[in-house]
Amino acid sequence: MAQTDTKTPRERYRAQVRAEIKQHAWEQIATTGASALSLNAISKQMGMSGPALYRYYASRDELITDLIRDAYRSVADTLRSASAAGADLAELAHTLRRWALEDPQRYLLIYGTPVPGYHAPDDITSISFETMAILLDASATLPSDGPATPFDTHLAEHRDWAGDHPASPAVLHRGLSFWTRMHGVLSLELAGHFTGMGFDPALLFTAELDALLAH
Amino acid sequence: MAQTDTKTPRERYRAQVRAEIKQHAWEQIATTGASALSLNAISKQMGMSGPALYRYYASRDELITDLIRDAYRSVADTLRSASAAGADLAELAHTLRRWALEDPQRYLLIYGTPVPGYHAPDDITSISFETMAILLDASATLPSDGPATPFDTHLAEHRDWAGDHPASPAVLHRGLSFWTRMHGVLSLELAGHFTGMGFDPALLFTAELDALLAH
Repeated sequence: MAQTDTKTPRERYRAQVRAEIKQHAWEQIATTGASALSLNAISKQMGMSGPALYRYYASRDELITDLIRDAYRSVADTLRSASAAGADLAELAHTLRRWALEDPQRYLLIYGTPVPGYHAPDDITSISFETMAILLDASATLPSDGPATPFDTHLAEHRDWAGDHPASPAVLHRGLSFWTRMHGVLSLELAGHFTGMGFDPALLFTAELDALLAH
Repeated sequence: MAQTDTKTPRERYRAQVRAEIKQHAWEQIATTGASALSLNAISKQMGMSGPALYRYYASRDELITDLIRDAYRSVADTLRSASAAGADLAELAHTLRRWALEDPQRYLLIYGTPVPGYHAPDDITSISFETMAILLDASATLPSDGPATPFDTHLAEHRDWAGDHPASPAVLHRGLSFWTRMHGVLSLELAGHFTGMGFDPALLFTAELDALLAH
């Protein structure tokens, strides 16, 4: 949502209305769920006609794509800023957790239940890869010890997803383990599965991180 | 959904209609999402009046509760059967994965994005604990080595969630790590995050399990 001064007043106005539509969309997602998102309901809330709103978003899917793109952009930018400031893998993990807890709806829109009938465009995959590349960079700085596992061997031959990142199979493996373990705690936590269990999910998250870094 | 012969014809008919309503509900969840579940739409599909359907489910939330209870019941029963047949923690993990892949909608209804405005009744928590107790039993049979971690110490004082299960803090910790790691892979897999990455998620799942069992 970067609005630079190079935009014309008309473009700035358009960006502002789109931002306002997205704000209403997030509120709707929190109260009715992403799959029930309704452009008509948003146009009513904003006092616009349906056709007027459709000039900003031609379909529900286009609006969802913008929300999902913002969310992926946000996690990638957050991790990249932390990484540029010298964060190691442990600090990136805590950055990810803060990002997730700051806005659970945003987290769940991309990592929770997929919206039925919605298919994300390809450019979103590339933002998602930016995030993975940051994690692989951080994973690569840790010592790799121990013999290659069967999954390392598999990754040596199935590494298209890592593009031209120079990570070794062991580093690819660590990056994926990092990603799934952090999401394992976060997704259960944000979906409320630890509520009422009495332990502190932050400590479970840290314990999972410690275990990952120790081996 | 056990229908025993001790039921009257009227009770059997009622159970049958409720099962049919739930079948339509699952189809709706797959196409429109759980948050958009509509009793009116189901009554139309079944050729019933709205009020007739409301005699079976008084509200959307009552229907969702039944679906969620079935899902928790199903995972608990599936793991208990495997455990009774001698499955160890590794076999329970693969049983969990098969259960999840067999019906992703069912998995995502309980472990994905919570349905906005819906609150599960307390008895569901107790089914969820049955599942955890099976995992703790299996975790307890593995050797516990290594010094107590800070999270073990925390769990020693925050173990109400484990009821009167005799698991040591290290076993409680392993049970939670097991649970979050398996869900970390499964939730990303079922939400489609590994699609197009090219590696085999089954091997990542096994690698995560191996790492857990090795330490």
